[in-house]
Amino acid sequence: MKKFMNEAGSLAADSLDGFVGAHDDLVAFGQDRKHVRRRVLSPGKVAIIAGGGAGHEPMHVGFIGKGMLDAACTGHVFTSPTPDQILGAIRETDNGAGVLLIVKNYDGDLMNFEMAAEMAVSDGGHRIETLIVNDDIAVERTARGTGRRGVAGTLVVEKIVGAAAEAGLDLFSLKAVGESAIAATRTMGVALKGATVPQTTRETFVLGETEMEVGVGIHGEPGRSRQDIADAATIASLICRQILDDLEPAQGQRILLFVNGLGATPPSELYLMFGLARRFFEAHGLVVCRKLVGTYATSLDMAGMSITVTLLDDASLGLWDAPVHSAALHW
Amino acid sequence: MKKFMNEAGSLAADSLDGFVGAHDDLVAFGQDRKHVRRRVLSPGKVAIIAGGGAGHEPMHVGFIGKGMLDAACTGHVFTSPTPDQILGAIRETDNGAGVLLIVKNYDGDLMNFEMAAEMAVSDGGHRIETLIVNDDIAVERTARGTGRRGVAGTLVVEKIVGAAAEAGLDLFSLKAVGESAIAATRTMGVALKGATVPQTTRETFVLGETEMEVGVGIHGEPGRSRQDIADAATIASLICRQILDDLEPAQGQRILLFVNGLGATPPSELYLMFGLARRFFEAHGLVVCRKLVGTYATSLDMAGMSITVTLLDDASLGLWDAPVHSAALHW
Repeated sequence: MKKFMNEAGSLAADSLDGFVGAHDDLVAFGQDRKHVRRRVLSPGKVAIIAGGGAGHEPMHVGFIGKGMLDAACTGHVFTSPTPDQILGAIRETDNGAGVLLIVKNYDGDLMNFEMAAEMAVSDGGHRIETLIVNDDIAVERTARGTGRRGVAGTLVVEKIVGAAAEAGLDLFSLKAVGESAIAATRTMGVALKGATVPQTTRETFVLGETEMEVGVGIHGEPGRSRQDIADAATIASLICRQILDDLEPAQGQRILLFVNGLGATPPSELYLMFGLARRFFEAHGLVVCRKLVGTYATSLDMAGMSITVTLLDDASLGLWDAPVHSAALHW
Repeated sequence: MKKFMNEAGSLAADSLDGFVGAHDDLVAFGQDRKHVRRRVLSPGKVAIIAGGGAGHEPMHVGFIGKGMLDAACTGHVFTSPTPDQILGAIRETDNGAGVLLIVKNYDGDLMNFEMAAEMAVSDGGHRIETLIVNDDIAVERTARGTGRRGVAGTLVVEKIVGAAAEAGLDLFSLKAVGESAIAATRTMGVALKGATVPQTTRETFVLGETEMEVGVGIHGEPGRSRQDIADAATIASLICRQILDDLEPAQGQRILLFVNGLGATPPSELYLMFGLARRFFEAHGLVVCRKLVGTYATSLDMAGMSITVTLLDDASLGLWDAPVHSAALHW
């Protein structure tokens, strides 16, 4: 394992320290450095808080700022933040309009965010609602278990909900906006190399020289299948086809197409995949009217990428286009 | 070798196609797809053109836009664009105010940009000036050979010169602004894993499991030394010390600190290195008043990062802060 780090145990905290130092015009540490929040909160609006394990940077701290998140709580690598951390963020950002928590669909995150919400309601009288993002179509929808994971599509939900909150929507309306965005969003990823977890110094999975993992999760969860590596056009078709089959969009439907790097895949390859995915969806009658390409939701140093599609209507298009000023997204 | 690509020979072109498709609100292909330029040129200003081999994305195409470049010419992977390509970009962007070429200091680039400039002057009557960026302190200044290479600091030069051009400076004034920015800028990089060149399917250099290459170039040129890998704080001190010794800044000097990913190093590690570099320079009496962290000047899928410092004065600070709207830099 080769990483730029001091000790395995301090990688997450050291990285967060660097992040806050690099963007101290936008963000600040909350109390005891347990969360990161906007330097200046907007009065009167619902607070939007997200969080999860470290190792997915810039998600979520990179999305803190006007038009997106108010705060984010980061745990250790691939480990949920504690209820205590989340409660602190709620207390520091709720100005009376309530708090919307955006949670990726993992057992640990669900449990800790739910516990924090209960404490905030019972002890502090906060009004709390929760959105659970589950955009990863690699996992089948089943009656048992947690179901589909939350992955890169979480960015889209945070952007749309954040814009709606900035526009002054109330807590319940925001929850409805978020649920629509979640219902309209699907993601699938593929890895060429597993992530190396600093504490164990081992890869989450080891692929052979000619293998790829299709449908991989952002913690190195196994995907749908391990296959021989193919050319980029074949990989793009494989993933885009799954998304299309799951979303079943109408002809002429407008979409946001988002190609996300998982950590160790360079921009040149992400752009190449974007071009192929765009052609695929256009050939299938969709209108790619918004685009995003970059490394936004990572799995440490995993080599790979994911493709996210969100169906857009006039409302969500307007919210996507609304100004955002965070470290990782800015327009 | 594992990459998202179709054929080795088409990686650069396929990637560029994806880039232009993803950012078609900002950029368009020039004639015969030989260069990329702003979708809408600003009348009356000096045209700023950069270029070089592919494999360094988002440099330079990601810097095309208002406040930065007017056009960029990309060659094959790690190969200079041809004089023909550069001449085409000059013809399509010069509106009478002249053209400033920004060239990284490599033999192939120097030769082809010089040839294009000569053709543009003699055949087309264009007024051309050239800036040669040589920020890489890993190479000693010597009387023989090409000397110091142009690496990530090229971004800083392009941003400062681009802002000055947008403000209406004439060609000769812009060249002076650029030369000041070059004189104020130093970079040094370190690699944990070499880049894999698609055509050869081999790494540019192969490091052992516990080795790092200090002072690496962006084409996998050998660095100053191959050393045992160290913790991040040691690596940061090692590089920052070299930069400090080379720049010899005054106490209280304001600097821009830029930590750049070389392709396969994730944001979490880049932010960690930024935090350490910032502390180093602050402990040595400098004022880190502007910051940039991200993957901007890559070497394909090389794992590693570089640290760039630019000494700032009121003029360059104002130019750095001026609005920019490109695919990779936007404020």
